[in-house]
Amino acid sequence: MSILFRQLTICGVGLIGGSLALTARKHGLVERIVGLGRTPANLDIAVSRGLIDLATLDAAQAARGADLVMLATPVMTFPSTLAAMVPYLPRDTVVTDVGSVKRWVVEQLEPLLKPSMSFVGVHPIAGKETSGAGAAEETLFANRRVIVTPSATSNPGAVEKIETLWRATGARVERMAPQVHDAILARASHLPQIVASALASALAEENVEGRWAAEFGAGGLRDTTRIAASPPEMWRDICLTNRDAIEQALKLYRDWSGRFEDAVRAGDGDALKQLFERGRRMRERIG
Amino acid sequence: MSILFRQLTICGVGLIGGSLALTARKHGLVERIVGLGRTPANLDIAVSRGLIDLATLDAAQAARGADLVMLATPVMTFPSTLAAMVPYLPRDTVVTDVGSVKRWVVEQLEPLLKPSMSFVGVHPIAGKETSGAGAAEETLFANRRVIVTPSATSNPGAVEKIETLWRATGARVERMAPQVHDAILARASHLPQIVASALASALAEENVEGRWAAEFGAGGLRDTTRIAASPPEMWRDICLTNRDAIEQALKLYRDWSGRFEDAVRAGDGDALKQLFERGRRMRERIG
Repeated sequence: MSILFRQLTICGVGLIGGSLALTARKHGLVERIVGLGRTPANLDIAVSRGLIDLATLDAAQAARGADLVMLATPVMTFPSTLAAMVPYLPRDTVVTDVGSVKRWVVEQLEPLLKPSMSFVGVHPIAGKETSGAGAAEETLFANRRVIVTPSATSNPGAVEKIETLWRATGARVERMAPQVHDAILARASHLPQIVASALASALAEENVEGRWAAEFGAGGLRDTTRIAASPPEMWRDICLTNRDAIEQALKLYRDWSGRFEDAVRAGDGDALKQLFERGRRMRERIG
Repeated sequence: MSILFRQLTICGVGLIGGSLALTARKHGLVERIVGLGRTPANLDIAVSRGLIDLATLDAAQAARGADLVMLATPVMTFPSTLAAMVPYLPRDTVVTDVGSVKRWVVEQLEPLLKPSMSFVGVHPIAGKETSGAGAAEETLFANRRVIVTPSATSNPGAVEKIETLWRATGARVERMAPQVHDAILARASHLPQIVASALASALAEENVEGRWAAEFGAGGLRDTTRIAASPPEMWRDICLTNRDAIEQALKLYRDWSGRFEDAVRAGDGDALKQLFERGRRMRERIG
């Protein structure tokens, strides 16, 4: 493959940004990688692992010479991070991100760009329990979905180059509108998180005759609440930035939960069996 | 250990009943084990694995000589199974079970017994994806909780013997009232099941612009819906036989889910962070 960008600046060289850096380097898709961070500790690891060529805590230094900027910090910090860099960026810089909501990001970031710049939103649906530059690995995205969400003003050439970059990771790259992405992820990712966290919250202090009920749960309770251990700040931000779609997803869940509740209250065995069967079919379909 | 019962008759020699048989035999806690089933196939496996000495499809034959009867079929079949055996049971027979609801079982079974008999309810909180006599294993209950739920009329001596039998499996045996058991399990087991199944049901046919949303879920969706693949008939029966406690648990969940929903709608970052933190603390506590 040939060079796509001369300088990639990654803001937040963590699991996602660091893993992408490994692929970009291996295939020679970028000449130089700069890492922008808040503290030296993680950047030191990124340098020592060869993920980046230069580490900096300074937005201006990170911006200079970057024809590709990748925002890989928590989503709500994107606007301030980008705003600090824009004055120092080359005029045709492409800005991309790896955030898990897309419409909000487009709405917030595009007004910050100069007219000659272009934003191309991306959401790599990949993650692990681990984080930071030390956790980065080249195979993280293999066979995972990476959603590219061009806006009305994204430069088509820039979109192509970003897709080429991500395809090199072995991911399944797919294109869709930002609001379609957000509606899908609200259902497939944000809803399960809230359901798991609400279940964990409900049981947090639930005692029966002096016994903590959750202690009597087995593998089912553990599986169903596993993702409730995810970082609260990250999920707060997702809820704040994908509010409308999440509200719709919660309403969908409430409707179906209500059908189970009605069937329990009515002691309706046929309805219960049908509902549990519907759930089982869906579960078998996702594998 | 010394002999507790001369003849144990297990109705339904599956994962739970079969595993208990292995322990009872190993420690010489029963002299003879009879298996009652509906079809020969599973009983043949039970005989060939040495779980039982005699296999029968006949309730009368299974009943004769049994000073301990263990009901290990689906809960809602307990009354008819026991009723068919009672006329042929010795007068002091102890009847026990392994069902996952307890108050309903006590209420249904005790009226069927002769005054000299005694019922001792038990719920071993253990399970695997597998089932049947072929899946039985001696270590299934090691370090698992086994809840013994004596009723007002359970014979204290019989309760002791049942507890001794279960302790031999390496389980943590605990005693509580049937309705306390049911309230705890409604929260720790039945609620997660309904939450997982309702989530799976909600997403079963949910498309966004022609794409099936659930296909874009990652590990989080898979974990959270894993137990939705459980047998619908079993969960229908649990919902029908532990209705009141499950209704309470669903209400508890609805309250907390509503707090998440209110915070999303209000865009209340502080409330969201606190809610996700509460969920995370609970999840870390169950490990």
